[in-house]
Amino acid sequence: MKLHVLAASIVAFGISATVAVAQSNEPIQVIKPPSQINLGMVELGKKLYFDPRLSKSGIMSCNSCHNLSMGGTDNIPTSVGDKWQQGPINAPTVLNSSLNVAQFWDGRASDLKAQAGGPIANPGEMAFTHTLALGVLESIPAYVREFKVVFGKDKIDIDQVTLAIAEFEKTLVTPNSRFDQWLLGKADALTGDEKAGYKLFKESGCVACHNGPAVGGASFQKMGVVSAYKANDKMEGRSAVTGKDADRFNYKVPTLRNVEMTYPYFHDGAANTLTEAVDTMGRIQLGKKFTADENAKVVAFLKTLTGDQPSFLMPILPPSSDKTPRPTPFSK
Amino acid sequence: MKLHVLAASIVAFGISATVAVAQSNEPIQVIKPPSQINLGMVELGKKLYFDPRLSKSGIMSCNSCHNLSMGGTDNIPTSVGDKWQQGPINAPTVLNSSLNVAQFWDGRASDLKAQAGGPIANPGEMAFTHTLALGVLESIPAYVREFKVVFGKDKIDIDQVTLAIAEFEKTLVTPNSRFDQWLLGKADALTGDEKAGYKLFKESGCVACHNGPAVGGASFQKMGVVSAYKANDKMEGRSAVTGKDADRFNYKVPTLRNVEMTYPYFHDGAANTLTEAVDTMGRIQLGKKFTADENAKVVAFLKTLTGDQPSFLMPILPPSSDKTPRPTPFSK
Repeated sequence: MKLHVLAASIVAFGISATVAVAQSNEPIQVIKPPSQINLGMVELGKKLYFDPRLSKSGIMSCNSCHNLSMGGTDNIPTSVGDKWQQGPINAPTVLNSSLNVAQFWDGRASDLKAQAGGPIANPGEMAFTHTLALGVLESIPAYVREFKVVFGKDKIDIDQVTLAIAEFEKTLVTPNSRFDQWLLGKADALTGDEKAGYKLFKESGCVACHNGPAVGGASFQKMGVVSAYKANDKMEGRSAVTGKDADRFNYKVPTLRNVEMTYPYFHDGAANTLTEAVDTMGRIQLGKKFTADENAKVVAFLKTLTGDQPSFLMPILPPSSDKTPRPTPFSK
Repeated sequence: MKLHVLAASIVAFGISATVAVAQSNEPIQVIKPPSQINLGMVELGKKLYFDPRLSKSGIMSCNSCHNLSMGGTDNIPTSVGDKWQQGPINAPTVLNSSLNVAQFWDGRASDLKAQAGGPIANPGEMAFTHTLALGVLESIPAYVREFKVVFGKDKIDIDQVTLAIAEFEKTLVTPNSRFDQWLLGKADALTGDEKAGYKLFKESGCVACHNGPAVGGASFQKMGVVSAYKANDKMEGRSAVTGKDADRFNYKVPTLRNVEMTYPYFHDGAANTLTEAVDTMGRIQLGKKFTADENAKVVAFLKTLTGDQPSFLMPILPPSSDKTPRPTPFSK
């Protein structure tokens, strides 16, 4: 086992070795803490994650839509972009996103590094360009020094920026949920209703897609298997990436980790509550109508998936210099 | 002396007793750490300060415009409000704001508690109402419990909300700047140029308004004493509060603490750099044209006023319940 440097990870991982047998029988596994983490890159990436100077307006950062005080999301159906533009799709949580098979709902980015550059240059989101963002960073002496320490190069490039943000994001795992404690052998970590909910979750078929350490995130599936889903948007899902008609309305299965915090639900953010989301999923994906009692038990189980949230000091950003180009929130 | 519980305060305060004579000779005094702080109220207030559910849109918090990663400001000339409305005036820093004689540029709020309720209900800022904000808080079980622990009452009211936010803001002082270290007797804390800049700052008359622990914040003064200031806005300043014609274009003298981080400068945010701000102030307030060398020395002194920034764990906000009214970022 590698040396794990993050305190939250150590807490969660402490007792795993003794109960390895127990968890191997279940379709959901405990979250493994991140390993091989470059801490210098994490600290730099944390600053970049919180720095609104990577946006045209100077007021939007990664944390604006993937707010680490709120489950790594913005808790609204679709995000607000530059000039208050309405986003096309629900902002997925950044928590445990390193466990996803790919990034974005349609999987168009293969990993976190590939994802991180997207919103910066998206005209509907941060509305900047990579060139302009690099110009800002290069004008800030403390950033220039920190990039040089971390990457050992004389010039900042976009690969360094997205690598650092991705490295920070790799640390955003949420171990030690009550469900994980139960998986690791603490029998009284779950109530009777919560265990009954987990049994229903498995026997009804939810677990066919929502499995693994992230309880999802591992595959693309059609939204509306048994009956069509009437979405609040015009997105077509995975087919936009593959060009295949068979992939229409296919979306990455979202993680259910911390799902109590990541409302509203679905790619269009149309379901406000877990009760509503469980009901809809049962009907359109499984052809099953959960009773009120069954629904409540599944929801009770889902709430046991809330883990320790990332805990870190709020970063202090280095000030701009006289040469730093100023943000332009109100210009075209 | 009271027991000071905040770590940053202890560091700054450790050596003050031995050099009390030295600082009493100067028109600028060291920042005293906050005392009589209610830590339960601070922790609650910190959550509220970061909670965007106090806005109509669900995406704006106190920290949006008074960003504690960026000197307690948003570093743009005027802020962005609900629906991307352009604010009328530059967002002043929240850092050390407890030292101000009154709050807002025109002093219309007598203290931090009175200020805190303003932006929540301002249609051009967070665009919510106090009643709606209280409805949100009352629907979140973890908030209901925390308010009860802190205030001992069964119902949350707006006084509790603004008291808690103000209590958190009282902790946002920035002790231990290099200038404070020099005031406290560390002779080599400043360079020769920085000391020369401070001498110029005093002898040119800047210190007539920018004095005391906050290096400002203690009085209202006319913007444009010697020659008129051509503002980028139509604000009239203190007269909007007093109704007196003599108070037109009078504004609260801003603090110069951390001024390296709180660009752009003036109530209209028109000055991008300290060089520009010092030049303008010299001309229109003092009738003095600083030479390039003098200006550079004053700027060097001003940069010694950057203190220890508030250091705290990013708060984790309690999730909404099924009963919580949802934000409406895109509705009228």
